[in-house]
Amino acid sequence: MNQIKRLFDIDPWKLHTSTLAIDDRRLQESLTSTGNGYMGMRGNFEEQYSGDHHLGTYLAGVWYPDKTRVGWWKNGYPEYFGKVINAVNFLAMDISINGQLLDLATIPPEDFYLELDMQTGILRRSFTVTIDDATVAFEFERFLSIVHQQLAAIRVNATVISGEAQLVITSKLDNLVQNEDSNYDERFWQEVAHEVSPTISTLTARTVENPFGVEQFVVTSGMNHSQESDQLAEHELMVEQTFSQHLNESESWTLDKFVVIVTSRDIPEEQQEKAVHDLFAEFGCDFEAHKQAQIKAWAKRWELADVVIEGDDEAQQGIRFNLFQLFSTYYGEDERLNIGPKGFTGEKYGGATYWDTEAYAVPLYLALADPSVTENLLKYRYNQLPQAFFNASQQGLKGALYPMVTFTGVECHNEWEITFEEIHRNGAIAYAIYNYTNYTGDEQYLKEKGLEVLVAIARFWADRVHYSKRNQCYMIHGVTGPNEYENNINNNWYTNTLAKWVLTYALENYLKFEEEVDFTISQEEQEKWLDIIEHMYLPQDEELGIFVQHDTFLDKDLMPVAELDSSQLPLNQNWSWDHILRSCFIKQADVLQGIYFFGDHYSLEEKQRNFDFYEPMTVHESSLSPSIHAILAAELGMEEKAIEMYERTARLDLDNYNNDTEDGLHITSMTGSWLAIVQGFAQMKTDNGQLSFAPFLPTKWTSYAFHINYRGRLIAINVTSDQVTFEKLSGEPLDFTVYGQSYLLEDTLNVPLTK
Amino acid sequence: MNQIKRLFDIDPWKLHTSTLAIDDRRLQESLTSTGNGYMGMRGNFEEQYSGDHHLGTYLAGVWYPDKTRVGWWKNGYPEYFGKVINAVNFLAMDISINGQLLDLATIPPEDFYLELDMQTGILRRSFTVTIDDATVAFEFERFLSIVHQQLAAIRVNATVISGEAQLVITSKLDNLVQNEDSNYDERFWQEVAHEVSPTISTLTARTVENPFGVEQFVVTSGMNHSQESDQLAEHELMVEQTFSQHLNESESWTLDKFVVIVTSRDIPEEQQEKAVHDLFAEFGCDFEAHKQAQIKAWAKRWELADVVIEGDDEAQQGIRFNLFQLFSTYYGEDERLNIGPKGFTGEKYGGATYWDTEAYAVPLYLALADPSVTENLLKYRYNQLPQAFFNASQQGLKGALYPMVTFTGVECHNEWEITFEEIHRNGAIAYAIYNYTNYTGDEQYLKEKGLEVLVAIARFWADRVHYSKRNQCYMIHGVTGPNEYENNINNNWYTNTLAKWVLTYALENYLKFEEEVDFTISQEEQEKWLDIIEHMYLPQDEELGIFVQHDTFLDKDLMPVAELDSSQLPLNQNWSWDHILRSCFIKQADVLQGIYFFGDHYSLEEKQRNFDFYEPMTVHESSLSPSIHAILAAELGMEEKAIEMYERTARLDLDNYNNDTEDGLHITSMTGSWLAIVQGFAQMKTDNGQLSFAPFLPTKWTSYAFHINYRGRLIAINVTSDQVTFEKLSGEPLDFTVYGQSYLLEDTLNVPLTK
Repeated sequence: MNQIKRLFDIDPWKLHTSTLAIDDRRLQESLTSTGNGYMGMRGNFEEQYSGDHHLGTYLAGVWYPDKTRVGWWKNGYPEYFGKVINAVNFLAMDISINGQLLDLATIPPEDFYLELDMQTGILRRSFTVTIDDATVAFEFERFLSIVHQQLAAIRVNATVISGEAQLVITSKLDNLVQNEDSNYDERFWQEVAHEVSPTISTLTARTVENPFGVEQFVVTSGMNHSQESDQLAEHELMVEQTFSQHLNESESWTLDKFVVIVTSRDIPEEQQEKAVHDLFAEFGCDFEAHKQAQIKAWAKRWELADVVIEGDDEAQQGIRFNLFQLFSTYYGEDERLNIGPKGFTGEKYGGATYWDTEAYAVPLYLALADPSVTENLLKYRYNQLPQAFFNASQQGLKGALYPMVTFTGVECHNEWEITFEEIHRNGAIAYAIYNYTNYTGDEQYLKEKGLEVLVAIARFWADRVHYSKRNQCYMIHGVTGPNEYENNINNNWYTNTLAKWVLTYALENYLKFEEEVDFTISQEEQEKWLDIIEHMYLPQDEELGIFVQHDTFLDKDLMPVAELDSSQLPLNQNWSWDHILRSCFIKQADVLQGIYFFGDHYSLEEKQRNFDFYEPMTVHESSLSPSIHAILAAELGMEEKAIEMYERTARLDLDNYNNDTEDGLHITSMTGSWLAIVQGFAQMKTDNGQLSFAPFLPTKWTSYAFHINYRGRLIAINVTSDQVTFEKLSGEPLDFTVYGQSYLLEDTLNVPLTK
Repeated sequence: MNQIKRLFDIDPWKLHTSTLAIDDRRLQESLTSTGNGYMGMRGNFEEQYSGDHHLGTYLAGVWYPDKTRVGWWKNGYPEYFGKVINAVNFLAMDISINGQLLDLATIPPEDFYLELDMQTGILRRSFTVTIDDATVAFEFERFLSIVHQQLAAIRVNATVISGEAQLVITSKLDNLVQNEDSNYDERFWQEVAHEVSPTISTLTARTVENPFGVEQFVVTSGMNHSQESDQLAEHELMVEQTFSQHLNESESWTLDKFVVIVTSRDIPEEQQEKAVHDLFAEFGCDFEAHKQAQIKAWAKRWELADVVIEGDDEAQQGIRFNLFQLFSTYYGEDERLNIGPKGFTGEKYGGATYWDTEAYAVPLYLALADPSVTENLLKYRYNQLPQAFFNASQQGLKGALYPMVTFTGVECHNEWEITFEEIHRNGAIAYAIYNYTNYTGDEQYLKEKGLEVLVAIARFWADRVHYSKRNQCYMIHGVTGPNEYENNINNNWYTNTLAKWVLTYALENYLKFEEEVDFTISQEEQEKWLDIIEHMYLPQDEELGIFVQHDTFLDKDLMPVAELDSSQLPLNQNWSWDHILRSCFIKQADVLQGIYFFGDHYSLEEKQRNFDFYEPMTVHESSLSPSIHAILAAELGMEEKAIEMYERTARLDLDNYNNDTEDGLHITSMTGSWLAIVQGFAQMKTDNGQLSFAPFLPTKWTSYAFHINYRGRLIAINVTSDQVTFEKLSGEPLDFTVYGQSYLLEDTLNVPLTK
């Protein structure tokens, strides 16, 4: 089946390797990506590297609407394909030794060592090269500050081991960058201004014009070093500062580079004159001080979020890598941002916001961060309500349709079967409001903002259904469910279920807060909603006792994945799209996604029958798939299956499981391993505002421990081979249940592990 | 509903107008297109024209694989989008009067007159312009020779009405042309060589390289005039010959331009040195002689094919325009060519070959041209059998899959719902073999070539079906039927019916000719085919007594088109694709297409019930739709409906019915009006090799007459208000039936018209 490729050694807190993966530099770069929510980059080398690799620096919220052409346009198609764009490469420095340019693709290094420290967010690299008679040892250290988000710090240290060396470092701000996935091979940046000086040099660039009326972004980068430059150069879209040093044997030289980035998202004017210089003055240029602050700040994040797994270092490394990359992408500071599928680690997929956020990330942020972080994710959608109305109107429909892929709230994905049809996403947006309200117990957001979104989404569904006279029920035709290996299907059980639920939840809450909101739903509209709720068609099969994925799913040639020759997998790399669409094989949880969302609506028997029917036909070729299956399998006591599923999500990128991590990390899927442990192995639930657990311990593990925030409490949970310990670290005492039994958690509670 | 726009006056043999349609030049250009099967062009002006228009000259079989980018590629997608490309503009001539450039967009002409003579294929234009003190009358005449296909002749005549004029004509071969629909705004031509001289100048250009391994075409154009040029100029991709003449009042000047075009399709080498010069020598430069030959050659075509309608000049003009444009596009000279949907009249849609040929054009060519013309259309597919195997293998399927859109036989349409799913086309290819064999009575082609194609297509179907255990029958999931306003549907009745028929017809003929062919179908495979034939699922509804378009069609919100507000039509310009896909509205005959193909398999009652059910939901937004409905309506005695449908096809382009003729003519649909008259009004059928008629006369018409070729006979049919006259002009006596009664046609037969 899938082959794993593991580039880094196992270590609980680090990714490290002694191999320069010449043939897998892209993969190595993806895995050593760093970010601070404001900006981020792939693990590119500072110095020139002529081997195959992918240069990528990305700034949150800075994007470009790339022109698209398809053979046949259709009414309602988005006009552009929004792209995360490659921004100024501020790492760049040419390094030469005795006149010869350092390039590890052509000058093989000795003692190569590369390390990403997940505990601190610091990337280190060291190696020794010999050029002619000079042998020089280099050490690089860099981080993107999570204390000052506009700041990056890079340290280069060179020591001459033997011989002597004239070292020249030309440090750059290089905006001559392109997207590999540009549809027209266009450059997305034009220069506005630049300024060079021996101390601070700056470069200001603007995204080029576009025909779609989309905002042009202006970005200024500035650089400052631990010493003054002795030579300057300037080009269109690039400034350079050069530093030279002669070293005899055993002598060392350290150069620190500090970079500040401001964008028109925050600083619309006088970026160069004021912001960059002011920020340099404010931050100062003390590498050690910034590094200590960085270490402290990451330590604080880990304090709340760390998951400790004993007895399985691979699993330990996996979960930490996922949390590290997730927090590097988003930590809730800016309500205008969301969680892109590749974060700052690649440019594929385009768009910054998918329904992944609501379906998979919200539960994690609810438990691991302050509620304000999740609230910011919800506000992001609330703020984009006008665009959601626009999206629906583009389809000729009422209400609000949240986009499948977007930067601004306007749909920017140009496949009709996704844009027009994968509308279940609209339910997930509503579900997140429910999830937040139910988890936090705080109805304030629901009342003030959430309800308006819920009603707008409900109106979409009420217009999107049609009444089938023949069958005397409401149907939803022409959709794509979460299983994207089918599309344009009718009556997707998941979509219909979600639509019915949205109408119910929106109406229920409208009636509850009717007096407090400033809009009304007419009696007639309420009756229409009730009629749809009552007569919504939800396909099921009596004989099999299952919910049916969609109208004609059972007519397919049904068979388990296990019957396929393993050479056929993954299907998306081996089968034609036609073959995939017609087959019974399921990309990711579909009916089971609904059962996961509404776990308390279904009996264990129903869950079991549906799991047993659908899971064997599921190929899990979406990175979002295994976690949901792990959670359900755990609930059903199928521990082996739960562990198998967990393992597919835990090290998805570290082991390059889907053979595509070279394009960037699966950021939004990184929640999956946490969900599998907490909602799966530990069976944490919050049904009807009631916290509960029913943990089991995977056989390979000695113990696992994690924290959750829940309604003002911080609780530490530790699962060992014989007991589960709950420790309330802060907040009021709490009623909760463990293995179905009620407890009051005051300080510490030990409950025997129930097999 | 649809609004008509009629640019040309009504005339039985001509399109003429006194209006220079500044705001509708594109439409005017489309309608005055000319072609000779080898090359063709839109009705562009010779002289410069700065108003909105679309320059277009096209050479049969010369194309370019344009790169495409879609957001999300899928396995099995074609790599390129094959395009009809704009070739050398050989009409071009700059004309100046006393130093001022003639441009009708800026210098309004008087006495403007534009005429396309369909009887002779000659395009004429005349007008008078006054520039300063000089008034000059111009007359243009041009044609593409159907006697010498490589030859074009253009005559310009200028007469000074008042004042005096220094006239300068710079005649060009201009290959600096671009496609408006180029995906990357690229130029598709590069220069190879050029040669200027006062007599013959030539230009050789090659299509630029492409990354798909597709052949590069080399085209040489040569020009020669009725006098020697007094000034020459040469540029990259353009050569010029200038002619000057001073005219006093009442003096005239005539300049004839002759152009020869050769392509690497026929002349791979020494195009410039030999072919062009040789051809000029062979053809000579006598405008009048070429013109007379042209008139004679077109007269011969009309002798066989003309349809005479008395009492309705609009209808008369319509049918002649359609036949004229069809024959201008294809007259069967080259078995490597096919009938592009826009012929030589535009560049939209791409590709040269669609299933339109087999479904709609073959019946016409069978009746109006020598059987060898149709045989060439069949051979085209036979020759592309290897590519059809390739196409199927791209989808992971056995057998042969003919492309939806192609130049070479390899699929070049890049929408999965068409490429992968609109596979009913594969049945139409087989049907054409049946049609040819049944019409001509000649089984030679079937035996020698056709059967191989049939078996390859049958093998595709046998692999494409799946057995549904639950329903105990064979199904075909994931198809798009002829109604492209739905897609990815299951068990399209038309597709399933066609697939079953192909298996039946292929097996039957294999068993008949088993001893004579050099391939075998194993016993096992034969049994498999028989099993599919026996257990193929063909959806029908007992209660409604109809065949069901596909599995869930009846679950839709069904309503007649008449209930729609007319502002919604045409749907494809007013509704989102999502809305269209989910609606019940049908683009073109789907179930009814099957009933048309297999007319003798269904009772009149079945036909009536299906027509009554489906036609009211049909929006006829494919130009291929009305004709099939006209034919069935006529058979069902619904004369009014038949006439309404006929009228939508007869003047589709002349009245710009679909509001898109500016992009080019609907060439493959032009068969529709002929089919509506002959197979509709006259009810000509050839079921089971038995020719039959059952004519009616549309109320507005006094009479109509046409010829058909049938099994070696040329028969003239004339339908008047009281009788139908059949005259056998050549060939043996023939048994046939009229209104269900048998007759022997020896010379002339009169049968009373039966209302």
